[in-house]
Order: sequence, then structure tokens, then C-alpha cells
Amino acid sequence: MPRRLKGASSADTRSAILDLIRSSGRVSRIELSEKSGLTEATISKIVRTLIDGGLVVEAGFAESTGGKRPVLLELNAASRYALGVSLDYARISLVLCDLNGMALHSHSIPGSGRSKPQTVIDRVAREIGRFLDKHSVSRSDVIGIGVSGAGRQDTSGGVLRSSRHTGEWEEFAIEAALCEATDLPVILENDANCAALGEFWSGRVSTAHDFATIYMATGIGCGLVINGDVYRGASSNAGEIGHLSLDVDGPECFCGARGCLEVMATPAAIVRSAREHEQLWARLNLAEREGEDVRTSFATIATAAMTGDSDAEELVRQSAKYLATAVLGLANIFDLDRVYLAGPGFATAGPIYLEIVRDVLDRLAFMRKVHPVAVEMGETGPGAAARGAASVVLHSHLTPHHARA
Amino acid sequence: MPRRLKGASSADTRSAILDLIRSSGRVSRIELSEKSGLTEATISKIVRTLIDGGLVVEAGFAESTGGKRPVLLELNAASRYALGVSLDYARISLVLCDLNGMALHSHSIPGSGRSKPQTVIDRVAREIGRFLDKHSVSRSDVIGIGVSGAGRQDTSGGVLRSSRHTGEWEEFAIEAALCEATDLPVILENDANCAALGEFWSGRVSTAHDFATIYMATGIGCGLVINGDVYRGASSNAGEIGHLSLDVDGPECFCGARGCLEVMATPAAIVRSAREHEQLWARLNLAEREGEDVRTSFATIATAAMTGDSDAEELVRQSAKYLATAVLGLANIFDLDRVYLAGPGFATAGPIYLEIVRDVLDRLAFMRKVHPVAVEMGETGPGAAARGAASVVLHSHLTPHHARA
Repeated sequence: MPRRLKGASSADTRSAILDLIRSSGRVSRIELSEKSGLTEATISKIVRTLIDGGLVVEAGFAESTGGKRPVLLELNAASRYALGVSLDYARISLVLCDLNGMALHSHSIPGSGRSKPQTVIDRVAREIGRFLDKHSVSRSDVIGIGVSGAGRQDTSGGVLRSSRHTGEWEEFAIEAALCEATDLPVILENDANCAALGEFWSGRVSTAHDFATIYMATGIGCGLVINGDVYRGASSNAGEIGHLSLDVDGPECFCGARGCLEVMATPAAIVRSAREHEQLWARLNLAEREGEDVRTSFATIATAAMTGDSDAEELVRQSAKYLATAVLGLANIFDLDRVYLAGPGFATAGPIYLEIVRDVLDRLAFMRKVHPVAVEMGETGPGAAARGAASVVLHSHLTPHHARA
Repeated sequence: MPRRLKGASSADTRSAILDLIRSSGRVSRIELSEKSGLTEATISKIVRTLIDGGLVVEAGFAESTGGKRPVLLELNAASRYALGVSLDYARISLVLCDLNGMALHSHSIPGSGRSKPQTVIDRVAREIGRFLDKHSVSRSDVIGIGVSGAGRQDTSGGVLRSSRHTGEWEEFAIEAALCEATDLPVILENDANCAALGEFWSGRVSTAHDFATIYMATGIGCGLVINGDVYRGASSNAGEIGHLSLDVDGPECFCGARGCLEVMATPAAIVRSAREHEQLWARLNLAEREGEDVRTSFATIATAAMTGDSDAEELVRQSAKYLATAVLGLANIFDLDRVYLAGPGFATAGPIYLEIVRDVLDRLAFMRKVHPVAVEMGETGPGAAARGAASVVLHSHLTPHHARA
């Protein structure tokens, strides 16, 4: 079935215009007409419904280009909210965003750990209630809750199939349970796709631009935004850069293949390598803290790498070299011209990763004579995934014209 | 800018209906209405313009489902033609196709070799004239000429930037020159994309299906069909699987990176490895034929591999293992569920490649528990690229609704 025909409904036209207003900042009706190809009469009609619905407001005047000064329109960012939750083993973060995807308030609580899924969901639901009350946000003004989780997922059932969680999560319908517990719409998305949509909604990327976001937490994932929406592939598992093999005869990965990025370069892999390096392990007191979260151990190593410990730096540079080779392959295959490095894994040693990935793409990208590949840091704070999850709600609710049938 | 809005014109609706008729074989107006979501009145109006234009004919009746037996429609395949040309160093192939993409006649002439571009284009134009005359095809019934070439290209200027051609081609506007010489519309596309669109137009793939076609000639390329069109990326160079690194510390590739599929697994790489294997080189009489086309030497090695020469088989199996790892990475990143192996490189030893690629994807695809990845042979005959090039013409002319803005 021709998927594009479906995109022709008036609801989609309305959402496309709303998206143009959002991504433009401030824009006049005439500019909207020029950018969309729709007549000024059609634009005026659509803008009227957006203003009546409280989503758009008039905000001053543009310079005159001869006649009357045109009225400027902008998104009424404060009219509604989206809530993002990142569901992690070690920590659960909540972020409340306005319609521009700007984070207004955030909060974090202990992670899911080994608790039963329903227990965790009930705890998150109670915390959401308190969080909204504290900031005097009415539930009826919250569009929905976006939930970010690591690893493979079955998006049709809203189920997380993650190796970081206990087995019970694998059959647990997160979307349905959290919706039941909060009486709000819920949407589940993997962390890398959340991060990519977070970049998209940050306003730094134009809606016409394709890009990849490499998301590093304890593992490495990738979210691809193509033609204004997350590229999903056959089963919503596209962007699986972690199992790109960088050495066909390398060490075996849990997926069964050899030399995967996952086993060569992730924070988990760096912590494993550090354990084999007795002096480094002792010097950073990692031995005494055996059993602590991989993320914390990696942060210790990354800090050492950035503050002159040459052994730690060598481990991080080696990881960055592998990551750069994987990103090179990704850029060659998708013919990308823009890549972001996002997620807490880049919070400390981001500059080392950025330098090496940029260098490799500048020197070796196959299309380098045709166009450069820009590599930039994305959001690396602890709330990156949660803010991204809120963007997923905005993306789904405000710009359905992007979604594939 | 919202690209989907542009897809809403009536010309696109018409081409989407034409595409539905083509991909259905025979179909009634009621079925078209069901499949497209358009009303029967709209369908009747569009079908009338297609019949008046000679593109569609009525072809018998469907079974009755109660009332009158519905009239079946089909593409009037013989009403127009598309011509495909594969422009290769060693051989130039011409294929004439009907509107279904079925090859009616083919012909081949000596390759471009070291001749000047304009000399080659003039020769091709004369040959096209003779070819059409011989088969009594009027120029006015030819929609256009598709040209397939290897390697990077600048599609905006219709220029081939291929390492297989002499430097003069790099600034030569093939599309403009062949259009001038034949007075027919011309479209240039790389061989892997031609092969992918050839599979798409073969009728074996539904228009709703995403897939990759691995195209092996002397090198290895990849064409991706996503959402009914070639996925191009930022500069029409997407699908560059040849420079996926399979060994970060492996042998250096001409692109500057190390361990690329190009340097590990292509027919050119196999011929290089065979040269280092003195006994094999002597046994297959390759020494005496030094300097002959890589394709011919590789065919000799592939034939030996398929007929019991264990050294030759080992070389081919090693190449297939590398290719399988690259295809695994591609399938993981795009979350593909369908891959074709096409092109003359698979003509002889195709069964070895098919067995190994299938095995690796069955065992190791990251999403294997969610869905299998089907691997099938595509077209491997010498005319595969030329037939694919004719499909590019059909795709561009008959189904513009697929093309991105």
C-alpha cells in the first residue's frame, strides 16, 4: 500500500504546520506559506485552529517588507507538558518538559534494581504524582509519559526485552501498566531513539536533516532520524551499532558473533579491561569497590583518563578508536553528514571520543570529497534519556505527519 | 520542510494507483479502493485517465462475490519501453524492457576501455539506434534510457566518479551527452542501486517491503530500497558496504581505512590472494593470462571452487565469510528482513556465498528471535545491471510518488 497517500489527511497538514512553527521559532503566515507550498488562505485557516486550541500564540511583528508588518506566530510552549521517565537498573529519572522540549523540572529516585516490575511501576506512578503536585502541574495538562529503556524492545506490546533487567521484565507490558497506574497515555522507546529525538526536539537540528545519535550509557546504541522520524526497520530494532563486528576473529560477544563494538569498546568492556590491568585497578581503588555499578567504575576510569593517568587514557583512546571505526561504517552505509555523541558515557571523557571520531571521519569517510561529516556532542547529562523520552511524547502527539503508517 | 505534503498532489495519487495495478498483476477497481483507501469514484476517475493514456487495459473478469463480476485491470506492458545500458570498462550491455520491467531483447558490445568519453557515448548512441531499428521499436515509444555505472557518482550532474574509469570520465556529464546524442531522456544510477530497483521491478518484492541488494561485480556495493524508493542519504552515496571495516588492524584499503570488505572479500581481492598462492595460480593457468580482466580471472577461480579445487574453494569461502559479516552488520543496523545477492560476481559461486551468508544471519542476526532475515539470490546474469538500469527509468517515470522531494 502506498504509505504516502496516508500522509495527505488534513490532520497531517495541521501537524506539519505546527512543526514548521515549532522548528522556526517565530514565523509569519507568509513564510509558512512559502515553506510549505500551501496557499496563504489555507495557512490562515490552519493557524486559526491552532490558536483556538491554545497551541500557538501571536508574538509581535516581523520587519515590514513594504506593506503592513506581518504578525509573528510561535508555539505556546507553556500550554501543555510532556513527562519523560528513564527506567534504569541503577537510577530512575523524571523530567518535565514544555512543548518546545525544554526541561523545566527534573527529579531522580533509586533504580529498578531487582524489584518486581509491578512494584517498580507502582513506585514510579506514586513518584510522578508527587512530582506533578510539587510543581503544581495539573494532570489534564500533561500530554503523556515517555519511558526510555535500554536494549531491544517489542514496541507493539510496549515490552522491554533488556539484558540489564531481570527476566520478569521480558514479558511485562510497561506501557499498559504505567498507563493503568497513572491514567495518562504512555509510550515506550529505547534509550538511543529517545536521545536522537531529544536532539531533534532540542531545536539544534532542522526538521529536514537526517542524522545519527550514538548513545553511550554502559552499552552503546544508535538512534537514526531519517526524513523527520526515527528509522525503525522491520521490527523497531534498527540502529544496532553495538553488534557491528570490528574484528571477525576477535573475542566472542554475548550475541554469538566476534569482535562486536559491544565487546571491544563499551564502558562495560573498558571496566573489564581495567580489571586485567592490575596496577591501574589498584591505583584507582577499583578493587575495593568491586561490584559497584559499571557506570560508576567507568566514570572513575574516565576521570583518570582526563586528568593525566596515561594507562586510563590509553584504554579510553582504544575504545574511542573502535567507536570511530563503527561510526565510520555507519556514516558510509547511511551516507550521513551529521552525527551526535550523547548519553552519560560521554559525560566525562567526551572530548577524547569527540577528537578521535572527528579525526577518523575527516580522514576516512568514503564521501569526504563530496561533503564533510559533522560530529558534535549531544546531551550527556544524567537526564538525557528522560528528556529524550519526553521528546518522544511531543513527537508522537504534535507531529504525527512524521510517523510512518 | 515537511516532505510529505509534497506527496499529496493528484499526479502522485495517479502514480500510486498505477503502481498498485503493476504490483498486483491483475486487480479490480474495488480491490484498488480497498488497498489505497480512496473511494471507488476516485479510483474510477483515475483508472479512466490511465486507460485513455494507454498505460492500463481491462483484462477479463474476477470471480463474482455476489453481484456482477468485477472487471480486472492490468498494466499495458507492451505500450511503452525502457532501455537500460550498463557502462563497463570491459563490456557495455543494452537491454530493452517492457513496462513490467521484463527484458525483451538484449545486446552487448565492447566496453569503454581507454577510449575518450565522448567517443564511447557516440558509439553507444549509434548502437542504440541500430538496436531499436532491429527490433522495430519507435523512439517515441521509448520512455528513456537508464545508465548503470560502478562507484561513486554525482547524481546532480549525471557524472560518474568511478575508479574503474580513466580520469576523463570524472568530469564528463554522461546524462547530458547521451541525451544529446540520442534525443531521449537519460538517467544515471550506480550499479548497486540499479540492481536493487531491478529486484523491486521484478515483481518478486512487494512495494511495501524494505530490502537490501548486495551487488558484486569486481567490487561489492549495496542498494537499499526503503519505503519504496532507493535510500540515498546526504549525497546519493548510501549503501557503501565496501568500506565497512572487518578488521581495524587489517590491510590498508585504497580509501585509507584498514580491513575494509573491499580489500578482504571482493573478486579483485580474491584474484590478488590467488596470485600469492603459487600452486593454485599455476594450476588454473592464471599466470599465462596475467593482465586479463579481473572478472575473467575470478570466474576461473569460482569455477574451480565449485568443481572440487579445495584451495580455490577456501579462497571463496573466506570471501563469503567476510561478506556475511558485513551483511550481518548491515542487517543489524537497518533491521532488515530481506537481502538479495545479485550481480555477475555471484554467477558461478553463488551457492557458496548464499549458504554462508544465510548461515551467519540465521545464527547471529541480532533480531533473530524477533524475525528471520531472508537471504535470496537476485539476478546474476551479465545483463543484471542493464536490466536494473531500465527499471530506474520505469521507477522514475511510472512511480514518481516514491521519489523523495
